[in-house]
Amino acid sequence: MAEPPLQHLVRQIGRLPGLGPRSARRIVLHLLQRRESVLQPLLASLETMAAAIRQCDTCRNWDVTNPCGICADSARSDKTICVVEDMADLWALERSGAYHGRYHVLGGTLSALEGVRPDDLGVAALLIRASQPEAQEVILALGATVDGQTTAHYLADSLAHSEVRLSRLARGVPVGGRLDYMDDGTLMAAVRARQPLE
Amino acid sequence: MAEPPLQHLVRQIGRLPGLGPRSARRIVLHLLQRRESVLQPLLASLETMAAAIRQCDTCRNWDVTNPCGICADSARSDKTICVVEDMADLWALERSGAYHGRYHVLGGTLSALEGVRPDDLGVAALLIRASQPEAQEVILALGATVDGQTTAHYLADSLAHSEVRLSRLARGVPVGGRLDYMDDGTLMAAVRARQPLE
Repeated sequence: MAEPPLQHLVRQIGRLPGLGPRSARRIVLHLLQRRESVLQPLLASLETMAAAIRQCDTCRNWDVTNPCGICADSARSDKTICVVEDMADLWALERSGAYHGRYHVLGGTLSALEGVRPDDLGVAALLIRASQPEAQEVILALGATVDGQTTAHYLADSLAHSEVRLSRLARGVPVGGRLDYMDDGTLMAAVRARQPLE
Repeated sequence: MAEPPLQHLVRQIGRLPGLGPRSARRIVLHLLQRRESVLQPLLASLETMAAAIRQCDTCRNWDVTNPCGICADSARSDKTICVVEDMADLWALERSGAYHGRYHVLGGTLSALEGVRPDDLGVAALLIRASQPEAQEVILALGATVDGQTTAHYLADSLAHSEVRLSRLARGVPVGGRLDYMDDGTLMAAVRARQPLE
């Protein structure tokens, strides 16, 4: 007997990141029982994504338009380019509402092990954008991980001869963080970068 | 600004059982980066499900055919009907290879709290099937939970006057189970139903 279509679907969903056979079965049953209210709208969104979502030629963000909504938004400042690892990071910054400039989405970090080279991250395009007259600052908003910092170093070296200011996100104790849960590196950074009380 | 399509998709996926915003973002990025290899096949399967999957009139299983593959399989015995709560349980029994008869899928358990009545579970259809001359045994393969056992009691009462034998799954220590991790009820059941060594 060939694999029944429902079990085939369960296997496909179970291979998505963070899911397994058991959670995939729950999801399929959920979809099956809510065909009108959940499955059809989800299908429509996935079809939109498959058909219409494309990578922005400017910042490598994904959107239904090219240039993407952020690059096309004339209310945003052209003076800063915020370099992020991937779109999840871009979304996180957008949710925070802390940033109103442009982005550059690398799509990963440099990794000799996984064979990710600067070409794969669109570094050449970033250098061109940073050399435009309107660009004043590049924020290297990469993760405080080994890979993130290696990539940030590489980008800082590449941008060293350009006119733009370079910056990175502040290190310190996260909001809501308890000191006794912080690692030594975080505390070291927080003490060094301590700020005068106003 | 209206919600961008990708974030809308993230919200839809994040509402599926067992998922949240973070895991949904990971899944959407995964799909975005593997449009040909993962997204398109997944879309095709979901479309099949939305368009072709229907509930079997006989056993209330879901399949692309009606009667479903199990009801249509002439190699299976008509003598036993195994009553299960939902399709996940049916799949579990099928994976085990322990059962080769027919099924009846309730689609839930009786629940006064959630307003689930016998009509919602297709109990009338089960009684008709159990009264057919070929039916010899009804296995009440419901979960060993309060709701499952309430439902099993109700079904046993409803079937008391029919000709079929009634049975339920054995209780005991699961394979691989350590005695000191078992609850009292399981140990009680396992001691009472102890079997002679052969």
